[in-house]
Amino acid sequence: MTLNDYLSGITGADRDAVEAAKKRNDGLLKPLGSLGRLETMAVKMAGITGKVLNTAEKRCMLVFAADNGVVEEGVAGTPQEMTRNHTKNIAEGVSGVGVLAAYAGADLKVVDIGVKGRVDCPLVIDRHIADGTNNFAKGPAMTREQAIQGILTGIDMVRICKEEGYELLGNGEMGIGNTSSTSACCMALTGLSADEVVGKGGGLTDEGLVHKKAVIQAALALNQPDANDPIDVIAKVGGFDIAALTGCYIGAAYYRIPMVIDGVISALSALCAARLNRACTDFMFASHASAEPAYTYIMKELGLEPILDMRMRLGEGTGCPLAFHIVGSACAMMRNMHTFAQEAMDETYRIDIRKDEK
Amino acid sequence: MTLNDYLSGITGADRDAVEAAKKRNDGLLKPLGSLGRLETMAVKMAGITGKVLNTAEKRCMLVFAADNGVVEEGVAGTPQEMTRNHTKNIAEGVSGVGVLAAYAGADLKVVDIGVKGRVDCPLVIDRHIADGTNNFAKGPAMTREQAIQGILTGIDMVRICKEEGYELLGNGEMGIGNTSSTSACCMALTGLSADEVVGKGGGLTDEGLVHKKAVIQAALALNQPDANDPIDVIAKVGGFDIAALTGCYIGAAYYRIPMVIDGVISALSALCAARLNRACTDFMFASHASAEPAYTYIMKELGLEPILDMRMRLGEGTGCPLAFHIVGSACAMMRNMHTFAQEAMDETYRIDIRKDEK
Repeated sequence: MTLNDYLSGITGADRDAVEAAKKRNDGLLKPLGSLGRLETMAVKMAGITGKVLNTAEKRCMLVFAADNGVVEEGVAGTPQEMTRNHTKNIAEGVSGVGVLAAYAGADLKVVDIGVKGRVDCPLVIDRHIADGTNNFAKGPAMTREQAIQGILTGIDMVRICKEEGYELLGNGEMGIGNTSSTSACCMALTGLSADEVVGKGGGLTDEGLVHKKAVIQAALALNQPDANDPIDVIAKVGGFDIAALTGCYIGAAYYRIPMVIDGVISALSALCAARLNRACTDFMFASHASAEPAYTYIMKELGLEPILDMRMRLGEGTGCPLAFHIVGSACAMMRNMHTFAQEAMDETYRIDIRKDEK
Repeated sequence: MTLNDYLSGITGADRDAVEAAKKRNDGLLKPLGSLGRLETMAVKMAGITGKVLNTAEKRCMLVFAADNGVVEEGVAGTPQEMTRNHTKNIAEGVSGVGVLAAYAGADLKVVDIGVKGRVDCPLVIDRHIADGTNNFAKGPAMTREQAIQGILTGIDMVRICKEEGYELLGNGEMGIGNTSSTSACCMALTGLSADEVVGKGGGLTDEGLVHKKAVIQAALALNQPDANDPIDVIAKVGGFDIAALTGCYIGAAYYRIPMVIDGVISALSALCAARLNRACTDFMFASHASAEPAYTYIMKELGLEPILDMRMRLGEGTGCPLAFHIVGSACAMMRNMHTFAQEAMDETYRIDIRKDEK
């Protein structure tokens, strides 16, 4: 199947299931609207699965590792070989995402989508496209064919998860320099300025930040990515991880499985997917607020809001397992709370407080 | 033991354990500070238990139900008998808090601390002080002795939990009219105005809100609670649930067990405890942001911040089980993440990004 086949196969939320879920939710033993975003999450789950009552217990984190050629320009605070070294740690489950995923009962699939020198670890799934992207300060990061290959790889990983019976997915990345690729894509897609978008990533000095902004601005002037073509943007100034994560969201929408967004790289990839087919947003849940400036802009366009404020900026997908617990709680609310009808309860308690919401 | 015995027996966070936990945290495989508030939660847990490595899996929700005489003045959007009826639902585990607690692996102890007419349910623990408070628009809500009895009951429930081996507690309440009692206590303790503090609670019209503010202002003028004496404030314009929740925080600090705060009633009670002994705050975790205006003021004085933004306003303690998952995740991070030393990892990845935090 081609990427266009997947994109045209996306039909969005199941509206009948959404309406049925809203009806059940309004009959639960509580003032209308009083469980706030837990209610909207439970209703959204119905739109994804087509069922009112859902479980979200079989979970997987998809983590994509790739290198970014632009680190040659000195835009990252950490040496490039850290991508390879730390991808092994992630696959072995001893890093942040592995520990938090295990605590949330989630499995971990770590994919080498383009790590320089490849990763020496049998736990890593080999979908290697190239030894990192080219330095986009000197020309396109990758070919259009490679960008599509990356996206299709993300879709295929979701297919595998769907076939293995997973009910809830999250995604993460590892790649020194990937906040530079993310900022460049974000500026290209939104028209926002470097000052509005570029942050310090995994750790840069103030001087480093000024330099990072200049490198990204020059790269955009050189490569001229087409704002109306997310694939062109990813190919010219993106990364293999961004391509694969974009594919994750498309795959989630095609295979109808919820996909949790982590930080800014994950969010930018969600934006790429939404630009390719807006209905992809019906299958997304935001997790935690990112400190990177671009994050807030992206959430606004996606029409999503994070539920957690943890001041985390590790990446790897670490925000997703935390949100898994909350998505699971929302499903439990819908499944297990009793209704006014069941309790023959006085309906005066069913007061409507939704009008008071901010 | 008297209340003063408990208050003087509180010694605050274990500083040696906090320092040891900070040291281990800084050695974990991540940029320094990159797991943000998950790190501060894990370090705080060490201060509570005196151990660097903790679990927070055996959990209990303490829910206190009581009536408020002030509902005679028409300050609530729901009839008073709902307290009794819904306390039974809560105890049977079919309401919001029961379902969310069960999903978080938490047990539930529901206490009748002053429900009018008592609750007809063997699952409810009987610590009934009176058939609701007196109408504080006409005189004191309760006697000073009753306020102290309520506080000691909260402490005693924590003692029971400690003896039963619980590692993590949360609290909740049920009581029509208890946001009026909470607002009155908050205004008395902080000097804030009705406009800054009083919200619509479980559901009031705009006209109802104006009336609620007027009733509370008149009651404060009549009863003249002493801002420097939280027990006097609770006795004159508080509720039995507020007294018991205040005791929960004192008990948590005395028996050294973490106590999660729910919404504004739970937060006001935390403020009462902190005013009686500031070290109580070392044992508190905030859960979700409340829409009630007083909440933000109280968090600021307590030096705490919510981690979840769910727009929930059900009460019952429903925010706590959601936060239990995150506290548990923080403990898992500290226990299970590998260290740079274990992995013989390049320390350049251990970059310090804490300076970038907001």
